[in-house]
Amino acid sequence: MFNILDFIELKRDGHRHSSEDLHYFVKSVLSGQIPDYQISAWLMAAFIRGMDDEELRDFTSALAFSGDVFRLSAGKRAVDKHSTGGVGDKTTLIAAPLAASCGLPVAKLSGCALGFTGGTVDKLKSIPGMNMHLDTDQFIRQIDEIGIAISGHSLHLAPAEGKFYALRDVTGTVPSLPLIASSIVSKKIAGGADAFVFDVKCGNGAFMKTEGQARALCAALISLSAAMAKRSMCVISDMEQPLGRWVGNSVEVLEALQVLSGAGPSDTRELSATIAAEMLMAGGITDNIDSASMIVAGKLDDKSALRKFAEMISCQGGDPSVCGDPESILPRAAHEKIVTAPREGVIGRMDALTIGIAARALGGGRTRGDDKIDQSVGIGVLKKIGDAVSNGEPIFEIRYNRDEQLNSALPHLISAFSVAEFAEKRPLILDRVTSYDR
Amino acid sequence: MFNILDFIELKRDGHRHSSEDLHYFVKSVLSGQIPDYQISAWLMAAFIRGMDDEELRDFTSALAFSGDVFRLSAGKRAVDKHSTGGVGDKTTLIAAPLAASCGLPVAKLSGCALGFTGGTVDKLKSIPGMNMHLDTDQFIRQIDEIGIAISGHSLHLAPAEGKFYALRDVTGTVPSLPLIASSIVSKKIAGGADAFVFDVKCGNGAFMKTEGQARALCAALISLSAAMAKRSMCVISDMEQPLGRWVGNSVEVLEALQVLSGAGPSDTRELSATIAAEMLMAGGITDNIDSASMIVAGKLDDKSALRKFAEMISCQGGDPSVCGDPESILPRAAHEKIVTAPREGVIGRMDALTIGIAARALGGGRTRGDDKIDQSVGIGVLKKIGDAVSNGEPIFEIRYNRDEQLNSALPHLISAFSVAEFAEKRPLILDRVTSYDR
Repeated sequence: MFNILDFIELKRDGHRHSSEDLHYFVKSVLSGQIPDYQISAWLMAAFIRGMDDEELRDFTSALAFSGDVFRLSAGKRAVDKHSTGGVGDKTTLIAAPLAASCGLPVAKLSGCALGFTGGTVDKLKSIPGMNMHLDTDQFIRQIDEIGIAISGHSLHLAPAEGKFYALRDVTGTVPSLPLIASSIVSKKIAGGADAFVFDVKCGNGAFMKTEGQARALCAALISLSAAMAKRSMCVISDMEQPLGRWVGNSVEVLEALQVLSGAGPSDTRELSATIAAEMLMAGGITDNIDSASMIVAGKLDDKSALRKFAEMISCQGGDPSVCGDPESILPRAAHEKIVTAPREGVIGRMDALTIGIAARALGGGRTRGDDKIDQSVGIGVLKKIGDAVSNGEPIFEIRYNRDEQLNSALPHLISAFSVAEFAEKRPLILDRVTSYDR
Repeated sequence: MFNILDFIELKRDGHRHSSEDLHYFVKSVLSGQIPDYQISAWLMAAFIRGMDDEELRDFTSALAFSGDVFRLSAGKRAVDKHSTGGVGDKTTLIAAPLAASCGLPVAKLSGCALGFTGGTVDKLKSIPGMNMHLDTDQFIRQIDEIGIAISGHSLHLAPAEGKFYALRDVTGTVPSLPLIASSIVSKKIAGGADAFVFDVKCGNGAFMKTEGQARALCAALISLSAAMAKRSMCVISDMEQPLGRWVGNSVEVLEALQVLSGAGPSDTRELSATIAAEMLMAGGITDNIDSASMIVAGKLDDKSALRKFAEMISCQGGDPSVCGDPESILPRAAHEKIVTAPREGVIGRMDALTIGIAARALGGGRTRGDDKIDQSVGIGVLKKIGDAVSNGEPIFEIRYNRDEQLNSALPHLISAFSVAEFAEKRPLILDRVTSYDR
């Protein structure tokens, strides 16, 4: 007989849970039989005491199978990519159609913006007509037909995970490696992919502030994926400064379209191409990373990836002509304001977290889940750490509609950078960690 | 600015709380501003991480002053005694009037029976007419006039403690020494006494099962009382077997009246007299323990303590003639059943916990706070560990009204004792620990 007090006390005292108890617990939480105060007490005990590999696998499996699980059509081996969240991170918009254009089925379930990080769903919604809430049938049919679908999360996907996450968020139990890993992997598994590429961001604009923390999360994600019999790999990428040139919604779609056209900022291209190449490897399209990188570069340069993106937009009700003429189709804020360098020197700091907060203050993000977003605003990050600047040279381009948006964002941006005597450019990709030999 | 998430995370990570934050937290919990799931998460963190002496003092003070605090009239220095709860523990009924008869003001706020332990309030309610719910004015006036009052807890006394306790009970966070100590001491402080005598029970019928646990609780109670500027001492007493002869309600009043008349079981007299002597010491009536013991013995033998008890009963609306002729005034169950020894030998086990459970099954206790109690039932414990018994000799006398009461209690009692080849008698008082020199 499962007894909730015995269960809580077991973890409180640092002991381990049986598989049976973990499954029963998750099921009871989902059905509403366990009151929040008992779930919270357990979460805090699990946070402090931890879970071993077997407990974590059982807990993750219970979360993953607590609701619907996407099943792709027979014979399809889809790959999903997941970013732990950063500022200016539009890699999904590029890597997903890029991998699909190489013949890899891509089934991507994405989140909305929350806190200081953006969300793929909100970004794609800047494309007129775009449907970001596919139902299960549409999602699977689209992967069958054109090899790619990107959609918002369904509430029926790992619903128990949602229940735990909501409580973790308000009880100080978010930053626990086992709980984070189980939260991410359970949703990926419910999403139906067979292999995962994780982009673990590292730096002040990321959830993981230090390289040590990022490496620990990589290890947890890879070992948990392996325990769940899924192939996975992690890229660790820098988030001390925003990725690419633009932070916002329509402005990030614009930048993605530039990269898909063979142009755009080199850091956005580098990370997106790396992730797409790793997706090809994880999905078994090739087992040689150099040939994966070559395939990917070719599909960017010959615009196959851009055509795949247009195909997907069209399938999801959006206007595909955005791919040819983005500037005239994407919404653009009415006004611009330039922030300039106060003196000559080198950019020493270009604080991703503060810029993310500024973008939210501008109206491009959310503080709470039901906040409305202004798709047209954005921040152009014109200089990166290590770039030389002269006195008065533009640093940020702020696109805004209303003065109060500008007034909320401006103080953040002014404090978000510094001009130093000297600073080195930062490497973008810190490491790649795989769960399989190559 | 107090932020509840920062507060929870601080304790989660093993850091300490400021006095200001602890006070604000307790106040916000009481006013209902903090949801239960956040209180629970903090309780689990505090359970696992602990609190240092200063935090514990501040938390206790916040609990103690969260509602009404009894203030005795100027110049009165009252002493309270508190037992951690046992089976057959009627010492309050004796020690309180005994200390009062020695000129020490006694302000005693008592609880009701819950679980397997009895409650002073329920016991005294067996006396016809007895009012056990005095309001603050009555309580203080009675101490002014006759030097003693025993009453049930008011809801307004340390109400925040009640809120925390209710959540601890359902989240696996009860058995934490700092939380237990703060719970006990905060209520004592709200009760208005200047000094405390704690009777920490130790054994299978007590909350503290081992001497080590009991000593740790003593140390916590004494150091916390000292931090709150209150004089205190602890008696550690055995609870492997019930105290005295009777377990129940009216039967325990009967036994108390026997001891107050200079007779009764020697263990009940010994512990009650020890506690009363320690109350005189703690209250400053004398600073010599030998003379305290002599004063106390004299007041038992010349029946001054019995007269003081009668005075209190009368003041609280009860029938004082119970003190002269208890058998005809106290309710007595209609039937009796004797449990006998199955063979010759020595009593090896006389399990307090099981006998407590039997008394509750008999109708003399409560499983839930709103259960009704049968004041007239009881269990006579006729033999103690180390007593020789012959085959067929009476071990228990069960007083009951209805067959189902007997049928529920009997199996417990049959398993509650054993007859062995040899067993030593158990010492009653294991130690005395004081916070002050003598």
